Amino acid sequence: MRVETNTVVPALKNIATRLRIESVRATTEAGSGHPTTCCSAAELVAALFFGEMRFDPNNPKHPHADRFVLSKGHAAPILYAAWSEAGTIPRAELLRLREFTSDLEGHPMPRVPYVDIATGSLGQGLCAGVGIALNARRIASDYRTYVLMGDGETAEGSVWESAAMAAHYRLDSLVGIVDVNGLGQSAATQLQHDMEAHKRRWTGFGWHTLVIDGHNMEQVLDALAEARRTKGVPTVILARTVKGKGISFTEGQLNWHGKALKKGDEFARALKELESQMVPEAPDSKIEIPRPTMQPRDEKPREMSAPDYKLGDLIATREAYGTALARLGSADSRVVALDADVKNSTFTEKFEAVHPDRCYQSFIAEQGMVGAAMGLASRGAVPFAATFAAFFARAADFVRMAAISDLNIKLVGSHSGVSIGEDGASQMALEDLAMATAQPNFVVLYPSDAVCMEWSVAAAAQHQGPVYIRASRPKTPVIYQSNEPFPIGGCKVLRQSDNDKATVIGAGITVFEALKAYDELKQQDINIRVIDLYSLQPIDASTLIAAGRATSRLITVEDHYAAGGVGDAVARAVAPAGLAVTRLAVHEIPRSGRPEELIDHYGISARHIVATVNRL
Amino acid sequence: MRVETNTVVPALKNIATRLRIESVRATTEAGSGHPTTCCSAAELVAALFFGEMRFDPNNPKHPHADRFVLSKGHAAPILYAAWSEAGTIPRAELLRLREFTSDLEGHPMPRVPYVDIATGSLGQGLCAGVGIALNARRIASDYRTYVLMGDGETAEGSVWESAAMAAHYRLDSLVGIVDVNGLGQSAATQLQHDMEAHKRRWTGFGWHTLVIDGHNMEQVLDALAEARRTKGVPTVILARTVKGKGISFTEGQLNWHGKALKKGDEFARALKELESQMVPEAPDSKIEIPRPTMQPRDEKPREMSAPDYKLGDLIATREAYGTALARLGSADSRVVALDADVKNSTFTEKFEAVHPDRCYQSFIAEQGMVGAAMGLASRGAVPFAATFAAFFARAADFVRMAAISDLNIKLVGSHSGVSIGEDGASQMALEDLAMATAQPNFVVLYPSDAVCMEWSVAAAAQHQGPVYIRASRPKTPVIYQSNEPFPIGGCKVLRQSDNDKATVIGAGITVFEALKAYDELKQQDINIRVIDLYSLQPIDASTLIAAGRATSRLITVEDHYAAGGVGDAVARAVAPAGLAVTRLAVHEIPRSGRPEELIDHYGISARHIVATVNRL
Repeated sequence: MRVETNTVVPALKNIATRLRIESVRATTEAGSGHPTTCCSAAELVAALFFGEMRFDPNNPKHPHADRFVLSKGHAAPILYAAWSEAGTIPRAELLRLREFTSDLEGHPMPRVPYVDIATGSLGQGLCAGVGIALNARRIASDYRTYVLMGDGETAEGSVWESAAMAAHYRLDSLVGIVDVNGLGQSAATQLQHDMEAHKRRWTGFGWHTLVIDGHNMEQVLDALAEARRTKGVPTVILARTVKGKGISFTEGQLNWHGKALKKGDEFARALKELESQMVPEAPDSKIEIPRPTMQPRDEKPREMSAPDYKLGDLIATREAYGTALARLGSADSRVVALDADVKNSTFTEKFEAVHPDRCYQSFIAEQGMVGAAMGLASRGAVPFAATFAAFFARAADFVRMAAISDLNIKLVGSHSGVSIGEDGASQMALEDLAMATAQPNFVVLYPSDAVCMEWSVAAAAQHQGPVYIRASRPKTPVIYQSNEPFPIGGCKVLRQSDNDKATVIGAGITVFEALKAYDELKQQDINIRVIDLYSLQPIDASTLIAAGRATSRLITVEDHYAAGGVGDAVARAVAPAGLAVTRLAVHEIPRSGRPEELIDHYGISARHIVATVNRL
Repeated sequence: MRVETNTVVPALKNIATRLRIESVRATTEAGSGHPTTCCSAAELVAALFFGEMRFDPNNPKHPHADRFVLSKGHAAPILYAAWSEAGTIPRAELLRLREFTSDLEGHPMPRVPYVDIATGSLGQGLCAGVGIALNARRIASDYRTYVLMGDGETAEGSVWESAAMAAHYRLDSLVGIVDVNGLGQSAATQLQHDMEAHKRRWTGFGWHTLVIDGHNMEQVLDALAEARRTKGVPTVILARTVKGKGISFTEGQLNWHGKALKKGDEFARALKELESQMVPEAPDSKIEIPRPTMQPRDEKPREMSAPDYKLGDLIATREAYGTALARLGSADSRVVALDADVKNSTFTEKFEAVHPDRCYQSFIAEQGMVGAAMGLASRGAVPFAATFAAFFARAADFVRMAAISDLNIKLVGSHSGVSIGEDGASQMALEDLAMATAQPNFVVLYPSDAVCMEWSVAAAAQHQGPVYIRASRPKTPVIYQSNEPFPIGGCKVLRQSDNDKATVIGAGITVFEALKAYDELKQQDINIRVIDLYSLQPIDASTLIAAGRATSRLITVEDHYAAGGVGDAVARAVAPAGLAVTRLAVHEIPRSGRPEELIDHYGISARHIVATVNRL
C-alpha cells in the first residue's frame, strides 16, 4: 500500500460509497441496469483504482499503465463511476448511461479509451487477461493486469482454460478477483458462499489463492499487496461479498438482479442509507493515482519479403501459412502466434521454431487461445491464432465478442471442408465461413494456393481489424506468380473469353475443380469464366456483377455447407443487380472417405460443375 | 469384480493385447488413424467392456445397458475392436476402417448402434456423460455411464463445466476415466504425468478421485469397483499410461501421434511384439458379459392442448415458450428442460415450477448445458435447452456435433437482435440464425407471436432431430387464432392482393414492422404482400417463388446481421427460379439504446421498408 493505512482507508471507504451512489443513480436514471452487482464490488473497485493501480486518467491507453478488465460486464456503471472519480468522465455524463448517443453503454465497449475489450458475455475477461499479461512480458513492461469476475461466471469453462494457461505461463502480473456475492441472475450460484469450495478449484488449477471479506477495505488492500509480492504464479482473490451491499432492502436479495431502483421513494431511501455510510476522513488524506513510469517504445514493422514459389509447386495452403508467418514474425515484432496443440498440422511450428518467445500454447483449449489473442490484440500485439477451422466453433462466442470489440486479431482455420478426407465429419469445418462472414467487420480470406496464402497473411497483418483466413489440408499447385498482388476485397479472373456461357466461382480447393471443369468444357467447345474468390468479405461485387451480366449464369462451388458460405456471399453481392446464383455446396453431414471421393460424392467436383453448366 | 480375479485377469490382459493388435492392424490397413492412443487405453477399455459393464452385444441400444462414451474419439479403432471382441462387429469389417462405404469412420459416429453421440471434437464426452447419467435418474434406471477421456482434452473448459454439473447433481452413476498418456498431438500435455496435479483439479471440482497405473489390470478393475461402491459423488479414475504402449518403438514417443504403422516390416515387428505379450489363461476362464436386468418401459406422449390467447394480447414469444414448455412437459414425460441461469428471462422457470425434477441447471455454462442436452437426447429424452440466443455461440461446437450426431435436441434462443435494446451488443444475437441454418439437418423456426411459438414448441417436440427456435425479448401482439396450424417448412401470407408491388418477408419482430409498412403504403395506394417466414429451415420455397413472380420484388427484413439469416435463406430458396432478393438487415456492430430507436437506426423498421418499396 502506498500510504499509511489509517489515512487512506477512510478515503477509500468513502470512494466505495460514492461508487455505489453513482451506480445506483445512473441505473435509476436509465431505468434499467444492474445496480446490485455494482454494490457488491464497490470496495474491490475503489481499492483497485485508488489504492493499487498505476495509470494516467488522461491517457488510459498508456502502454505501461496497469490494466483493469471488468469481466462481470453488467457491473458497467461502477466502471464508469470509477473513471469519473478519477476525473476521466464528467459526472453529468454518468446520468446518460445506456442512452443511444452516449458511449456509456449497458455493457463496457472499447468505444471508450479506458476499455480494452468488450465484456458482457461472462467468463471471457480472464482469457483476455492472460493475453494482456503475456503482452506485458512481450514488451518487457511492468504493468499489471487485474480481472474482476463474478462468482457465477466461474462456471464458464473458459475461465478454467485461462486459469490453466496463466498457471502454465507463471503469469504473476495477473490477478484474478472474484466478487463472490453468491447470487446469479435467476438463483443462488452453484458454490454460493462456500469459500473453501471456491478455493479448492483455484488451488487445484495452480493459483495462489486468497480468501477475504470483500467489504473490508484493509483486507482488500492487503490481498492486492500480497498478490503484488507473489512471484512465479498468478494470484486470485476470492472476495466474499453481499449483492446489493449498502442498501438494506437489496442486500443479499435474489430478486434484485438486473433491476434499477425506482425513481422517487425507493431511490431516495437508498441514497439516504448510502450517504449515511460516509466516514470521517483525515484532514490531510489525499488519494493520488501513481502514473506509469516506463516510456512507450516504437514498434515499427519492416516490409515482409515476397514469397518464393514456382508455378506448379505442390504446397498446402496451411503449410504456406506457417512459412509466411515465420517470415512475417521476423519483419514485425508485434506479431505473435497462438496454438491449441495442433501446431504440426497448422504449421504454426514454423513460427515457433524462429520466434519461440512469441508463440503461446493454450493446449487443447480454443477459448483460451482466442481469448488470449484478444487480450494481446487489445494491447498492440498482432496475434495470429490457428487451429482446425472446425474447432474455432469452440470459440465462436469469442469471435463474436472480438468483432464487437473490433479487435486486431487474425484467426487461421486449417483442415476446412470434406477435402480433409478420412478423419470424418467431426474434423471438417463446413460452417466456419458462416461464422466468420456473419460478423460485419471481419475480413474473410480463402486462398487457393501458397502465393495467395502468403499475401493473405501479409494483408491480414497490415489490416487493422479482425481477419479470418481459411486454409486447406490437401496440397494444391501454385497458380500465381510470387509477386502477384492480392488486395483485400479483390478476386482473380483466371479464365475469360468473349463468349463465356457461365461464370464458375470457386475458392480454396474448388478453384482447381473449376479449372478442371474449364478444361473439360473447353473440349466440348464451351467456354466458361473462372473466378478465384480469395476475398469473401469484403467482396469484389463489381467484378462478380460484370461476370454475371456477361455470362448470364453465376455458379458457385464451395467445400462448405450451402448456408453462409461462398454462394451466399456472392448472392448478397450480386443481388442489387438482380442476379441470382446457382450453388454447388455440401448438403448433408459427410462421412469418412478419401478426399477426392468425398469432393465428388458431395457434389463439388469438376464433374458436377460440368454437369451444372451443361444443364443451365 | 464379478469373478475371481486370478481367473479373469489373464483373460482380460489378453483381450487388451488383442484390442491393441486390432487397432494397429486396422489403422495400418487404412493407411491413417491413431494406433498409439488406442494402445495407451487398451487395459482401460478391456476392463470396462469385459470386466465391468453390463450390456447386450446384440442390442447395444438397450435402455438399461451401461453406456460408454469414447470422448477421445480419435481412439475409434479400439472402440470398434472392443465391439468386435464382444461379437457385435465381424472381425473382417475392422479392416474396412475409414473406408467410404464402411460405418467404421475415422471418429465414432452414431450411424452405428453402439455409439450414442459423435465424438472427435475433444472435451465433449463428459458433457454428454452428464446428460446420459441424468437420463438414468429420469427413467429410474440402474445403468451406469463411463466416459473415457484423454489427458490432453481436459484442457477444454467444457470438461470443467460438466465436472461442476456432475458434482452438483451428485451423479454417482457417472465415471470419468482419464487416459493420462502425457502426450498431445504436437507436444507433451500441460500436466504430463504429474498425477498429483491432475488429482488436485478433479478433487477441486468435487470428484472422488483415484490415481492408478492404467496398464495394471488389477488396479483398473479395483478402481472401477470402487467407483461402483462410491455414493453421492461422481468418480474419476486418473490412469497413468504410456502412449503407444506395447510396441517398443512407439512407447512414449511424441512423433507417433495420428500415424499408422507402415505395412511390411514396421507392422510385422509391432505385431510380433504384441503377440508375444499374450499370457497363459486358466483353462476354465470364460468372460461373460452380464446383461441389463431392467425392462424397457414405454413413454407415450399425449397430445398437447391448444394454446389459449386472444388476438391482440401482448406477449413476448420467450414467455409463450415457457408457457408452452410447461404444458408440453405435462403431456410428455420425455420432455426435460435445461437452463444456464437465465430461466427468469427465457421463462424456463414456468417449466421448472411444474416439473422441477426434469429441469436441469448448468449455471452459467452453455457448453455444459447443450452437452448435457445432447446426452439426454441420445438416451430418449426430449431436451429443450434455452438461453439468450447470443450465448449459444458459446456452445457452437456442441451445436455442430449435435448436428453431426443428428440428435433430438431442441435449442431455444431468446433476446435475439437489436430489439433487446439498452443492454447493448454483447447481449444481442445477430448471428445465431447463421449458426443454426448452417447445419443442414437443423430445423430453424422463428415465431412472431405467442400462438406461433406455442405450436413451434409442439412441432419441435414431434420432429425427430435437432431444432433451433429463435425467440424475442419485446412483447408482440397475438396475430394468429389459437388453432392456427404452423407446419415445419411453412410460412404465412398475411397480406395479399391482385396488384402487390412487392413482397416483404419478415420473421419474428420484423413481421410487425412489415405490417406497419403495409398500412402506411396502403395509404399511398400501394399494395404489398406480407409474409411471416416462421420456418427458415426447411423453407417454403414454392410460396416464396410464387410471391416473387407475382410481385416482381422480394424484400426481406430481419433483426440479424446480413449474412446467414433470413435474407440469405430466402435467396437460396428462390435462386432456382432466378429471383434475387433485396435485404434489410443490421450491417454494423450495434450500440445500446431503446429498442424502437435501434430498430429504426439499423435500418429494419417500417420506415425503411416503406422507403425500400418506394425506391424499387
